[in-house]
Amino acid sequence: MEIYLDNAATTKPEKEVVNAMMKALNEMYGNPSSLHSKGLEVEKEIKKIRRLLARALGCDEKEIIFTSGGTESNNLAIRGLIERNKRQGNHIITSKIEHKSILNLYQKLEKEGYKTTYLDVDEGGFISLEQLKEVISEDTILVSIIHVNNEVGSIQDIKEISKIVKGYNPQISIHVDGVQSFGKIKYHVKDLNIDTLAISGHKVNGPKGIGALYINKNIKINPLLIGGGQEGSLRGGTENVPGIFGLGEATRLLIENQDIYIEKIYNLKKYLMDLLEKEIKGIQINNKLNDNYAPHIVSILLPGIKSEIMLHSLASDGIYVSSGSACSSKDRKLNHVLQAMGIKDEYIDSAIRISLNHRNTMEEIDYFVKKLKEHYITLKRIIRR
Amino acid sequence: MEIYLDNAATTKPEKEVVNAMMKALNEMYGNPSSLHSKGLEVEKEIKKIRRLLARALGCDEKEIIFTSGGTESNNLAIRGLIERNKRQGNHIITSKIEHKSILNLYQKLEKEGYKTTYLDVDEGGFISLEQLKEVISEDTILVSIIHVNNEVGSIQDIKEISKIVKGYNPQISIHVDGVQSFGKIKYHVKDLNIDTLAISGHKVNGPKGIGALYINKNIKINPLLIGGGQEGSLRGGTENVPGIFGLGEATRLLIENQDIYIEKIYNLKKYLMDLLEKEIKGIQINNKLNDNYAPHIVSILLPGIKSEIMLHSLASDGIYVSSGSACSSKDRKLNHVLQAMGIKDEYIDSAIRISLNHRNTMEEIDYFVKKLKEHYITLKRIIRR
Repeated sequence: MEIYLDNAATTKPEKEVVNAMMKALNEMYGNPSSLHSKGLEVEKEIKKIRRLLARALGCDEKEIIFTSGGTESNNLAIRGLIERNKRQGNHIITSKIEHKSILNLYQKLEKEGYKTTYLDVDEGGFISLEQLKEVISEDTILVSIIHVNNEVGSIQDIKEISKIVKGYNPQISIHVDGVQSFGKIKYHVKDLNIDTLAISGHKVNGPKGIGALYINKNIKINPLLIGGGQEGSLRGGTENVPGIFGLGEATRLLIENQDIYIEKIYNLKKYLMDLLEKEIKGIQINNKLNDNYAPHIVSILLPGIKSEIMLHSLASDGIYVSSGSACSSKDRKLNHVLQAMGIKDEYIDSAIRISLNHRNTMEEIDYFVKKLKEHYITLKRIIRR
Repeated sequence: MEIYLDNAATTKPEKEVVNAMMKALNEMYGNPSSLHSKGLEVEKEIKKIRRLLARALGCDEKEIIFTSGGTESNNLAIRGLIERNKRQGNHIITSKIEHKSILNLYQKLEKEGYKTTYLDVDEGGFISLEQLKEVISEDTILVSIIHVNNEVGSIQDIKEISKIVKGYNPQISIHVDGVQSFGKIKYHVKDLNIDTLAISGHKVNGPKGIGALYINKNIKINPLLIGGGQEGSLRGGTENVPGIFGLGEATRLLIENQDIYIEKIYNLKKYLMDLLEKEIKGIQINNKLNDNYAPHIVSILLPGIKSEIMLHSLASDGIYVSSGSACSSKDRKLNHVLQAMGIKDEYIDSAIRISLNHRNTMEEIDYFVKKLKEHYITLKRIIRR
């Protein structure tokens, strides 16, 4: 038995995704930059997929470029935007609950001489708009905000953030890390009034190694990878054709089924939260079941039991959850998101993240909660001895 | 009928490569950064593949990191090396016959304030070691040289270059673009005495979207993509697991069969060159059949017929060749490599590159030369009218 509940770390690619990748590998293996038909047929297909992505995000196909994933998209956007704007100032803003690809990059930029502000969040995981208004200045050139947080699922009000930022100065760039929001909540980038938005293939049942970046056509950014002129010279390197085909198929499935997927995930979350509260004495749930949180993430605390121990106990039953974001779980530092939310250190140490996919079932949730309960009781008993 | 003779642009992935990728997509879909067994099993497999690559390149497994391809490897190495060395000087050297990912990057670095030297090549496509000795100075911090040129296949004497550079000053970094040399000529990076070497998956019957960089353990470089600490914090972002599995399988096949592959490609090249000289009157071949040229590239000129016209004529027969490197063929500028070799502009315009793979056969070569001869005669007749 395998119950995979770590879908915010990565997802299992859909069968259709795998088939599309097969096609790229076995038949359409030409280089899209080649002038002959073996290359042109691939270029054409990529164009179609770019259009699909534009449709899913609500933008123009010219506003989409393919990258190697969410991290590259985030790095490209931030580096690309500030390099263009650096004559205007050197203050850059983000939040305390960003993904490591933003936080670590901001730390590097700090060393390079940029002035940084990390916005606080409240106990629910929402950034303070008041603080944003206070810190924004004539020197500010970039605001980068995570749309859906990967640990607790809190959704930031990007429209409101944009109103504040662009209202203060329309020249300030806004980047949004949309890796956990794409496919999980419904939005169109044009409604958000932002400059760039990053997405990743493997978070939406597509393959690893592929991502995309929306770049508003009204702005210009500098490339990060310089090569043979691919992606409008914004991202050099032979296109990851199997990856693009896979992301295309994942996006097509999303366009067709997003409402069904979201409803299913929402119902699973509701079922899970009810069951956890009913069954597990002493549990604390860090998020809520409402429109302020994405439907796929449930963050819990199990006071007294270190999350790593619980994680391994569950894994021995074939159940996979996370003790924090996979991208930073190996550095063994306390979870920075829960810390920013004001949760006490001894509780953070017991945090477990359950993240859902439309592929999961109520039966899997039943089994998970049953096992979680058993382990929690047993482990607490062992520790008390 | 499909005769693919554009293998320097990209290759068809081997069946074993595709199967390994399937495994990553259908079974081993965990995130290698996850702490549970679903992640650890992937991390373990990646470790094995890293060891395979180290074996193929003749280095330590700790000296290999995975990237999204040759372009990223080249960009990471050059940016990473000069950022580390910039206190020592600001002069960087390369050649006139590099891949666009090096040449365009050097042009960008020039704008950023670096002093650049582009070494000349002789009529055979070999850089001048005398010129290198002349231009190298106390201000030099990097020499980046393409191992096997992608247009004509000339092999640069990296050992000799390294002797000159490191002999002058061991602190000067040497980067080698090994994208076209890996698998096609035999070498160990340790014998070359260099700092970094870039390779790409899709040039060796692996998938697109994956590459690697050898980084000598005695040196330190700065990362380009900042993320969650993957690849020893030198390359952030969730690993492209299907890509890595595919590259691993391509490398395993190379380790087992490299001698057979090289012999087969060499024999095909000999057969092709003999046939071309025998059959096509007026043809000029830009490279030779000896140890100074890689076995997979034949560059020819067909005076009087524009290469683009010939390329499309051949494609209508299902034969795929290149009119220049795929990565730059769309910008319609004259081929910079042939220009550097001193070939006259009107001849360059008629250049065709045929690039071979061990999958090709003598029968394919027969058919190709037959068709090339027919088209050449017909097209010349049409133009003369």
